[in-house]
Amino acid sequence: MEKITSLQNAKIKKWALLKQKKERDKSGLFLIEGEHLIEEALKAECVETILFDGICPFSFDSLIQVTPEILNKLSQNVSGAKLIAVCRKKENVIKDPEKLILLDGVQDPGNLGTIIRTAISFGFDGIYCSKDTCDIYNEKVIRSTQGALFQLPVIYEDLHDVIPALQKEGMTVIGTSLRESKTMDEIQKEKIAIVLGNEGQGVHEDIIQLCDAAVRIEMNGFESLNVAVAGGILMYHYRKK
Amino acid sequence: MEKITSLQNAKIKKWALLKQKKERDKSGLFLIEGEHLIEEALKAECVETILFDGICPFSFDSLIQVTPEILNKLSQNVSGAKLIAVCRKKENVIKDPEKLILLDGVQDPGNLGTIIRTAISFGFDGIYCSKDTCDIYNEKVIRSTQGALFQLPVIYEDLHDVIPALQKEGMTVIGTSLRESKTMDEIQKEKIAIVLGNEGQGVHEDIIQLCDAAVRIEMNGFESLNVAVAGGILMYHYRKK
Repeated sequence: MEKITSLQNAKIKKWALLKQKKERDKSGLFLIEGEHLIEEALKAECVETILFDGICPFSFDSLIQVTPEILNKLSQNVSGAKLIAVCRKKENVIKDPEKLILLDGVQDPGNLGTIIRTAISFGFDGIYCSKDTCDIYNEKVIRSTQGALFQLPVIYEDLHDVIPALQKEGMTVIGTSLRESKTMDEIQKEKIAIVLGNEGQGVHEDIIQLCDAAVRIEMNGFESLNVAVAGGILMYHYRKK
Repeated sequence: MEKITSLQNAKIKKWALLKQKKERDKSGLFLIEGEHLIEEALKAECVETILFDGICPFSFDSLIQVTPEILNKLSQNVSGAKLIAVCRKKENVIKDPEKLILLDGVQDPGNLGTIIRTAISFGFDGIYCSKDTCDIYNEKVIRSTQGALFQLPVIYEDLHDVIPALQKEGMTVIGTSLRESKTMDEIQKEKIAIVLGNEGQGVHEDIIQLCDAAVRIEMNGFESLNVAVAGGILMYHYRKK
């Protein structure tokens, strides 16, 4: 079995860079930490290498024994990690979708993680993200979704291209907006894609223009809803039954 | 106008302790930062003293000019603050409620903040929190609610006492639970209190026993919902119309 003990090892230095989105994009690799997440990643067949110190609970082709210092260097957790896996991003495809979420610039990793878990709960088939949406391979998103990440296809693509393509396939695309909008009961469709917007600005006006309709959540107060909460209410309404 | 320049000033040292829940509980005071929040707190009449460096945008009885170092000491923001106010917690009362939220040990400040904003959006009259629920005067809750905090009465009390008292007033109390539960459509009441539980454990079993019914959110997947999302779906369903 391979052993690495030096923090200066070329592989370790390369993997440490995966904390940056730029490097994850370039290499197609990302890191995960902890037994539970690695178990989920193994099921999803996206693990390349497992790094461990002490005893590894997994039998796997590519195991590397390392030092606690190396694990600390790669970990994004203040208290370090006992197990880290280098994973390869999957080529996601969404076939014949009935229910989709489109994210137009959602920034907060916590919101993204919550939206992914909610989408799975309500039987959504996948998520398309605009290129300026938070990276799902961000450590906080991975941690907050705890493996749910591997259950749902998430694709980064320009929504200006995605929306017309979905409409051609017979999907109704609705954007959340406060003005000139319909209530959820006024838009009842089987094949539906819901666009959720940025925490501050909402859905971009040019994206709303591409949608088949704008939908609003009926409210009583003037407070704005958190995007994950608004998404939850919409996904529950349009859930797969 | 009073001026304080020493970090060792007794008032400053006392106020710095307000970062701790224990000290906020003992004194009934809490700190807020920034012009927008202070404006909201002034409207809510809970400001005691405003500390500033440079020019204060507010005219107020009790203004104290301080140094940037003092503001940094009191601030919970890494980049410091220009304005800090010492506020007094309000004695909250909820009169003749129609819609209430009860929180049974919600721990995450972000979730608590989101639940408060959602409750305002859907016309809820107030929130009762168990004593082990996250403190609303926690800096992260205050920041995430941006003043919404001052619009909704929030009361910390033992839910074992609150629930029977509400039932005596004719309210239906429902707890979220996955087993032996009804759907939202099966429980249609005007005067309703919804119990939301801890992020890990949900609503305590003894609290569920006190409720009139247990409610579940119909789902398609096996993923569990975030408590703020579950709360959002329930509050939308039972909103004030």
